[in-house]
Amino acid sequence: MKIKYELIKKDGKARHGILHTNYGSYETPIFMPVGTQATVKTLSPEELKEIHSAVVLANTYHLWLRPGEDTIMHAGGLHKFMNYDGPILTDSGGFQVFSLARNKKKDIVEEGVHFKSHIDGRKLFLTPELSIQIQNKLDSDIAMSFDECPPYPVSYEYMKQSVERTLRWAKRGLAVHQNENQSLFGIVQGGEFEDLRKWSAEETVKCNFDGYSIGGTSVGEDKKTMYEMIDHSIKYLPEDKPRYLMGVGDPIDILEGVERGIDMFDCVHPTRLARHAHAFTRNGKINLKNLKYKEDFTPVDDTCDCYCCKHYTKAYIRHLMVAEETFGSRLLSIHNLRFLIRLVEEIRTSIDEGTFQEYKNQFMETYKKK
Amino acid sequence: MKIKYELIKKDGKARHGILHTNYGSYETPIFMPVGTQATVKTLSPEELKEIHSAVVLANTYHLWLRPGEDTIMHAGGLHKFMNYDGPILTDSGGFQVFSLARNKKKDIVEEGVHFKSHIDGRKLFLTPELSIQIQNKLDSDIAMSFDECPPYPVSYEYMKQSVERTLRWAKRGLAVHQNENQSLFGIVQGGEFEDLRKWSAEETVKCNFDGYSIGGTSVGEDKKTMYEMIDHSIKYLPEDKPRYLMGVGDPIDILEGVERGIDMFDCVHPTRLARHAHAFTRNGKINLKNLKYKEDFTPVDDTCDCYCCKHYTKAYIRHLMVAEETFGSRLLSIHNLRFLIRLVEEIRTSIDEGTFQEYKNQFMETYKKK
Repeated sequence: MKIKYELIKKDGKARHGILHTNYGSYETPIFMPVGTQATVKTLSPEELKEIHSAVVLANTYHLWLRPGEDTIMHAGGLHKFMNYDGPILTDSGGFQVFSLARNKKKDIVEEGVHFKSHIDGRKLFLTPELSIQIQNKLDSDIAMSFDECPPYPVSYEYMKQSVERTLRWAKRGLAVHQNENQSLFGIVQGGEFEDLRKWSAEETVKCNFDGYSIGGTSVGEDKKTMYEMIDHSIKYLPEDKPRYLMGVGDPIDILEGVERGIDMFDCVHPTRLARHAHAFTRNGKINLKNLKYKEDFTPVDDTCDCYCCKHYTKAYIRHLMVAEETFGSRLLSIHNLRFLIRLVEEIRTSIDEGTFQEYKNQFMETYKKK
Repeated sequence: MKIKYELIKKDGKARHGILHTNYGSYETPIFMPVGTQATVKTLSPEELKEIHSAVVLANTYHLWLRPGEDTIMHAGGLHKFMNYDGPILTDSGGFQVFSLARNKKKDIVEEGVHFKSHIDGRKLFLTPELSIQIQNKLDSDIAMSFDECPPYPVSYEYMKQSVERTLRWAKRGLAVHQNENQSLFGIVQGGEFEDLRKWSAEETVKCNFDGYSIGGTSVGEDKKTMYEMIDHSIKYLPEDKPRYLMGVGDPIDILEGVERGIDMFDCVHPTRLARHAHAFTRNGKINLKNLKYKEDFTPVDDTCDCYCCKHYTKAYIRHLMVAEETFGSRLLSIHNLRFLIRLVEEIRTSIDEGTFQEYKNQFMETYKKK
């Protein structure tokens, strides 16, 4: 079946809902861990369940290149391949094509994008149809339309052409999408231009996708501009479909996103930070390699209920990270993901209680970015 | 308390026993996973329990350098520091000093060994007393005497001087060892020289250690010589103490060791192989990066009961290893360790049934080294 979004409670524009999927129902807002190459780096599926992870994201571009969508189809789809029986969202590959392709050289034509593999430099050509066909073979629960994701800033003229092409690409993808068990999301682009965001949102909504993403954020713009991009897009999106802010995983950005009506977030940030010895705490990020933690025998975050914080000390994790032991990255990945998942859990409660603004203000007061 | 060894059953020289420790009783022969830097690479303590790991080994040299024995003492000892409530054995640091020290330049004097750190090149001096004092602070359950581990081959004259010094070092270590909850093992050296092995064994046994190691194997000698080294040492060791063959973890070597009366084995081999995509199977080692596994949707070893073999396919693990995802190393580490632990479990059963020789022959027939 397709996903269904059920709105439970609103507090201002902030929404507490339920996302019904083929692999269970999950309350929103959610934060989705990123499993780029069909694995959330260092973690097992059981560990994802333990931190109450809901949807996991996998990257179409990476899986297309390795091991190839046919191998995953022959395995019985992505769930079987990676032994994950929760819902999976695949992106379109668009973002990676624009950010990862070798030498950033790409040639965008009406048909699709010519570029070179970041692994071996071989020539590749990705089209809206191919992106959907790959995602069909991967058999994810939620697929994304193939869009152009321009950097920030580009000229109004360029962005106008780009959003028009992105809409044509969205329609082409929709035309070949035939998987009744896979939902398809449309993506709103338009950069910082209010009228282009409006046009993109309204035209994309006319296509009647199963959900909507706000794209083109976290591409170089400042925070204020990013929040405005959300404002300029979200008011045209229907209430009965989920809204997904792509690539955003900073705690403050999650709060700002929820405040504006976002239901779904994803980001490589928490696991990437973990691999660099950084941990989220209620008082901001800390660097576990810091000498001051050498004999700090307290948990990373003593308010946290995760495996890392229940059993290990900063001193041990510091030792692991200094000694380049991957168990350290694993522990911090568990903690950082759980931190964001607890954040959205608490956000949901505050929406129910009509105290979202207070919760947000309180969190932000404590959380001073270091 | 000190460890106690209880002999249950013999089949030829092969022994099935029980090792009573501060952290539970474990049947022997055992294979001990190596947690060099207070972590068995990529794995959690819970995963070690799940594969029925008994004793875990940690390296004194590495922990002395990072994070330092005082930090671990302040944490409440190694068990608390690494969250492992099973028995821990620490080596003396001797082997690492001789194999890892920067540029292999070392200066062996009667007092101890001068060498340089493999991390930053700073000058270090390790003595038999210091090794024991460090191990005392680490608070492992079993400590090892500081010995000289010469390469293979050295002259008879050199080896004679070396075993005599190793005995003097053993006695000096014993003199400063004062931890009533920590057992201390003596180490038999002597290379391939039958009379030196006899002398070393007899003199070491006179010191009345809690257990005995056979050292100086796996240092360059051929297999036949290694097995002879065991033969020339073990006959002088008492029946009521455990015998430990250091640094040996090849399945065939474990069988040959048990046949000669060895109770304990350790090796970095299974976890190091895992990180290089190699897996043990009943038919020998396989390389998971091999293209032939690209669409092989069967487990690494379909006779295996481990987490890796119950839930994942060769195709998925191949993908993880090719894509350099550490979850692949983690899965193969679980499997390779479990493979050796199952091997010693089956060996124990065969000893009970008086069929060790048949078991050994059958295993070796199937297991063709690739």
